[in-house]
Amino acid sequence: MQRFSEYELILASNSPRRQQFLKNIGLDFKVITHDVDEIYPESLKKEEITDFLVKLKAMPFKNLNEKQIVITADTIVWDEKKCLGKPNTIEEAVEMLSQLSGKSHQVITSVAFTQANSQKVIHEISNVFFKPLTKLEIDYYIKEFKPFDKAGAYGIQEWIGTVAIEKIEGSYTNIVGLPVVQVLTTLEKICK
Amino acid sequence: MQRFSEYELILASNSPRRQQFLKNIGLDFKVITHDVDEIYPESLKKEEITDFLVKLKAMPFKNLNEKQIVITADTIVWDEKKCLGKPNTIEEAVEMLSQLSGKSHQVITSVAFTQANSQKVIHEISNVFFKPLTKLEIDYYIKEFKPFDKAGAYGIQEWIGTVAIEKIEGSYTNIVGLPVVQVLTTLEKICK
Repeated sequence: MQRFSEYELILASNSPRRQQFLKNIGLDFKVITHDVDEIYPESLKKEEITDFLVKLKAMPFKNLNEKQIVITADTIVWDEKKCLGKPNTIEEAVEMLSQLSGKSHQVITSVAFTQANSQKVIHEISNVFFKPLTKLEIDYYIKEFKPFDKAGAYGIQEWIGTVAIEKIEGSYTNIVGLPVVQVLTTLEKICK
Repeated sequence: MQRFSEYELILASNSPRRQQFLKNIGLDFKVITHDVDEIYPESLKKEEITDFLVKLKAMPFKNLNEKQIVITADTIVWDEKKCLGKPNTIEEAVEMLSQLSGKSHQVITSVAFTQANSQKVIHEISNVFFKPLTKLEIDYYIKEFKPFDKAGAYGIQEWIGTVAIEKIEGSYTNIVGLPVVQVLTTLEKICK
């Protein structure tokens, strides 16, 4: 299924899951990333944070030509009043998973489509319901799966997602890190 | 994560997806299947159908000992007032996907846990929202993925799930064919 072949799509993300999604759906794209300090104003909440960060990640791309579209994305876990990013240590991962245990939280992804003279930003919010996790399950998961590259310290597509996520409301691929249908729909509008 | 090691779990399903789920979550089990004519009374609707079929699938298992638990499962797609099973031909697959296009339907799985002197049946219902599918997408998917072993002619974990399922409400693994968290919770109750 070839799509958008007139355009040059640039994915600005090192996430293997995002790259795999775009490959699986048959998009032709290249990966170009720039290091960006992912710092945002403390006053921001929920999708304000991810909307801010995807625009920040797009800033290093200068002098785009008319046929280039840069895709930047950011995913966070929003739990009650708190943003959970990637855990830096085992202790932080234990703390995050203990906090998510036995209740629901939101996974929020924003995606920016940046062109020479315009930018469109979308975001998608999914609800995730975790059953109560035991200390044994949390320790086992962190030891075996090392979720230090994942917001909220878990991947729904891994063991913990299968044994502990009772239900979701919203886009499944959004929880993995990219709301694929919504990205395709937006690209169709931009490229038509 | 060893679980239920005092019991002998028997999965009575040839579905590679169900077998993989139980392997992934670290359950010790064997697969024993019997051929059963999956016929049900026409008056049944929705979970009545799958509840009936999982009991039917458990019937050939006689003379179980006290430590054996037979797990039978059945998944259907329920679309408005109609049950969609596995398509037998390309034409049936095209018809099913055309029918599911651009709206929501339900995926229903029942699971029976059959022991020497008792039986427990659970079921789980998930809602799935498809974006409008083009004829090209339907034909491409059927040609490349041959979904003749799947109720409703699709697998959410395949290409079509990624490009066309906007959102879901309920258990994700249920849509693949087994509500894993609910199965584990039930086994914990039975085996405690």
